[in-house]
Amino acid sequence: MIRVTVWNEFYHEKVNEQVAAVYPNGIHGAIAEFLDEDDEITVRLASLEDPEYGLSENVLDNTDVLIWWAHVQHDKVPDEVAGRVKDHVLKGMGFIPLHSAHFCKPFGMLMGTACTLRWRDNDRERLWCVNPGHPIAEGIPEFFELDHEEMYGEHFDIPQPDDLIFIGWFKGGEVFRSGCTFERGYGRVFYFQPGHEEYPTYYNPYVQRIIKNAVHWAAPRKRRKTIEAPRAVSPEANPEKNN
Amino acid sequence: MIRVTVWNEFYHEKVNEQVAAVYPNGIHGAIAEFLDEDDEITVRLASLEDPEYGLSENVLDNTDVLIWWAHVQHDKVPDEVAGRVKDHVLKGMGFIPLHSAHFCKPFGMLMGTACTLRWRDNDRERLWCVNPGHPIAEGIPEFFELDHEEMYGEHFDIPQPDDLIFIGWFKGGEVFRSGCTFERGYGRVFYFQPGHEEYPTYYNPYVQRIIKNAVHWAAPRKRRKTIEAPRAVSPEANPEKNN
Amino acid sequence: MIRVTVWNEFYHEKVNEQVAAVYPNGIHGAIAEFLDEDDEITVRLASLEDPEYGLSENVLDNTDVLIWWAHVQHDKVPDEVAGRVKDHVLKGMGFIPLHSAHFCKPFGMLMGTACTLRWRDNDRERLWCVNPGHPIAEGIPEFFELDHEEMYGEHFDIPQPDDLIFIGWFKGGEVFRSGCTFERGYGRVFYFQPGHEEYPTYYNPYVQRIIKNAVHWAAPRKRRKTIEAPRAVSPEANPEKNN
Amino acid sequence: MIRVTVWNEFYHEKVNEQVAAVYPNGIHGAIAEFLDEDDEITVRLASLEDPEYGLSENVLDNTDVLIWWAHVQHDKVPDEVAGRVKDHVLKGMGFIPLHSAHFCKPFGMLMGTACTLRWRDNDRERLWCVNPGHPIAEGIPEFFELDHEEMYGEHFDIPQPDDLIFIGWFKGGEVFRSGCTFERGYGRVFYFQPGHEEYPTYYNPYVQRIIKNAVHWAAPRKRRKTIEAPRAVSPEANPEKNN
Repeated sequence: MIRVTVWNEFYHEKVNEQVAAVYPNGIHGAIAEFLDEDDEITVRLASLEDPEYGLSENVLDNTDVLIWWAHVQHDKVPDEVAGRVKDHVLKGMGFIPLHSAHFCKPFGMLMGTACTLRWRDNDRERLWCVNPGHPIAEGIPEFFELDHEEMYGEHFDIPQPDDLIFIGWFKGGEVFRSGCTFERGYGRVFYFQPGHEEYPTYYNPYVQRIIKNAVHWAAPRKRRKTIEAPRAVSPEANPEKNN
Repeated sequence: MIRVTVWNEFYHEKVNEQVAAVYPNGIHGAIAEFLDEDDEITVRLASLEDPEYGLSENVLDNTDVLIWWAHVQHDKVPDEVAGRVKDHVLKGMGFIPLHSAHFCKPFGMLMGTACTLRWRDNDRERLWCVNPGHPIAEGIPEFFELDHEEMYGEHFDIPQPDDLIFIGWFKGGEVFRSGCTFERGYGRVFYFQPGHEEYPTYYNPYVQRIIKNAVHWAAPRKRRKTIEAPRAVSPEANPEKNN
Repeated sequence: MIRVTVWNEFYHEKVNEQVAAVYPNGIHGAIAEFLDEDDEITVRLASLEDPEYGLSENVLDNTDVLIWWAHVQHDKVPDEVAGRVKDHVLKGMGFIPLHSAHFCKPFGMLMGTACTLRWRDNDRERLWCVNPGHPIAEGIPEFFELDHEEMYGEHFDIPQPDDLIFIGWFKGGEVFRSGCTFERGYGRVFYFQPGHEEYPTYYNPYVQRIIKNAVHWAAPRKRRKTIEAPRAVSPEANPEKNN
Repeated sequence: MIRVTVWNEFYHEKVNEQVAAVYPNGIHGAIAEFLDEDDEITVRLASLEDPEYGLSENVLDNTDVLIWWAHVQHDKVPDEVAGRVKDHVLKGMGFIPLHSAHFCKPFGMLMGTACTLRWRDNDRERLWCVNPGHPIAEGIPEFFELDHEEMYGEHFDIPQPDDLIFIGWFKGGEVFRSGCTFERGYGRVFYFQPGHEEYPTYYNPYVQRIIKNAVHWAAPRKRRKTIEAPRAVSPEANPEKNN
């Protein structure tokens, strides 16, 4: 059973009627709904309003994969809490930042880059799969379209991804590395670009499939309790200590 | 001094007046012309009609970087000659296949994949730089445009590039990994997508700059004479043989 | 159910008593035995002596992951048959060449490099895991040892791996990239260095676990029937044809 | 002219006679000395004791490549100053952390991982080149040896390097990814493991050559003044604004 926590800053849905109409249960609620259909996944919701910002040690210890949606409240997550999320990734937790979470603190800390990009409201996107054998692309056609999506364009200031899976084409003339994986410590990160709050992106069946696939891909195989640089005995000098 | 050989199948220019009008000295001639302006580069031309298809051991031994343009005559290069080119890359020669050379034999042999792609005549392209710190991107803006270019679209069946530098956006709706590097043996390969024979692509100053940059990037630091799997003495048992 | 074919040149076991004593059912037999314990895997054996070298279209069409052991009979596999194996990988079949299969034809064709290395009989190896979060490393400690193994040393002439998972340390003074992944087309390749025919390497529980993990990792998510470069309609001009 | 700043915490040399005997002018002094022989390089020294820790905006604005040696004083560099170094890398400055600088703050911030490793005093190392065509390996043989070096062993908790160039073999039984490149923003990073303060590592001609090569490799091709995520006009809607 993969334990997923869907974390949302949960702001637009409460102050903007248009967004609330699209996501009446919050963006996290909409994501939880389709993940719940997967028998190998169990989902819980979390948001900025929860105790310890919804990101206590206890929550993270019991999370296999953390999905993160945020846009205008990045700074409300204290550095210490963001560092805690980062440490859990390094210990093995999977992490899936969505759309405007390119600017959330834990992603920035894990990438080591500025994560800047070009952007523009209200464009049309077509996502092309450039790595059809990747598990995250399972069940996805050569391309699919989102009639309304915010434009995110290059240069996207990230490290070179370990796997580039999707490239976005925008009607307005830009391209974007829209689906990228990164290994950090024992953990796996998948950044996925679509998901502007005003559009019904998370109801698109391909978007749902990609996020489901990513949860399975990012689920940890091995977790470590601590991160340390150990003084080591020589395995040559101490053969009895060897594995 | 970097010794560049520009190899061209040299066919369209001789049978198609429209192409001849664009490239009166052949595509290889046009490429040689702008490379000649670089004081660190010396250029020679070669084509399918030359002795040994323009790819003799002697030519390759005296080539630091081989640029390759071909489209409809791939099969006229015998496997043995293509294998010779591949071996020279593995020994250190740089290799820059352009446009429809995605289907030339040496590139296929070096990639190990089918190198297939989607294509369509007569589109408009905008190239975005996704790796602005790379030496091949020196002097290139965030994006530039080609008013007329053949569409090459994903999925492009190549191994994951070592460096992805340019992504192409096409008016007709596709994207393409248009500038990619690959290390193979001691050699360096740069595939660059623009360059349909009917359009004046190789007169574009950004295209010229990219190809010049790529020549400098691909110039060999070290070449080897032979490729072999040597039975080795233990450096622990034979310290006097060590470096 | 993952359908695995374990292919072995099956030569040493028949002509060398020492090898026969270690692997009385052949190396492929020993590998099949531990794979059979996995309920999600079904195994069949194949060897050079079988009709069509054990590599007919029918066998490959019904193989999800092909494991390959060979040493001195590489040249007995015709180029055409090796190319068939390569094409099946590009269409999605997983491929796991072991030890001296670094020189088998399909691996060379898929890599595009010489796959040469340094080697020496009878050394001692310790394998270190450098990517502990990778699915192929699941259940594997920080390092483990093989008391007897042939030394394979750098420079190993392969493309930069997509994932480097294990590095081998040899008592005699060398290192080796011993566990490497490569994506080629729709298929996934894992090269694993241990497995000299004279030593009981394939009875080591960690070696067995790694090969099992690799079978699961390489099992195809998507397969294609044909490999082609299609002339494409513009998805912008023909929205009704879009996905 | 490449402007190099060699930054050293400059502590061991002042409190430990043994270290002072090896590096009478400081480790930074020894490094500056051999870099000075290169006509294309101009060097300046900096250390923790300098104003603003030797890392003022002015110093960094006038540095093309920053070399960093530190061991026990990492915490004396304030987070804000470390962040300033990181930002300059993202804007294009090259960065070469040496040996125990794996734990310096700017490297950790750029990697996003814990950068932990195994370690042990006083071992013997042999460095193997696994990427002989890379510019940083120019002039370096297949392997070379350091009679005395601190053991740094895997698992080294870094992101997968863009290029892995050297792997270290240690007499005591470990291996290490000893020479690794990473692109971050517009900047290039090369981590190189050898250089314990008690040993004359920086007098080894191969070590000197590698650091010189790395300076040339990391020298910026393009620098940016600011890092931002710009709201963009559509290049399709505003062709006159295009490049």
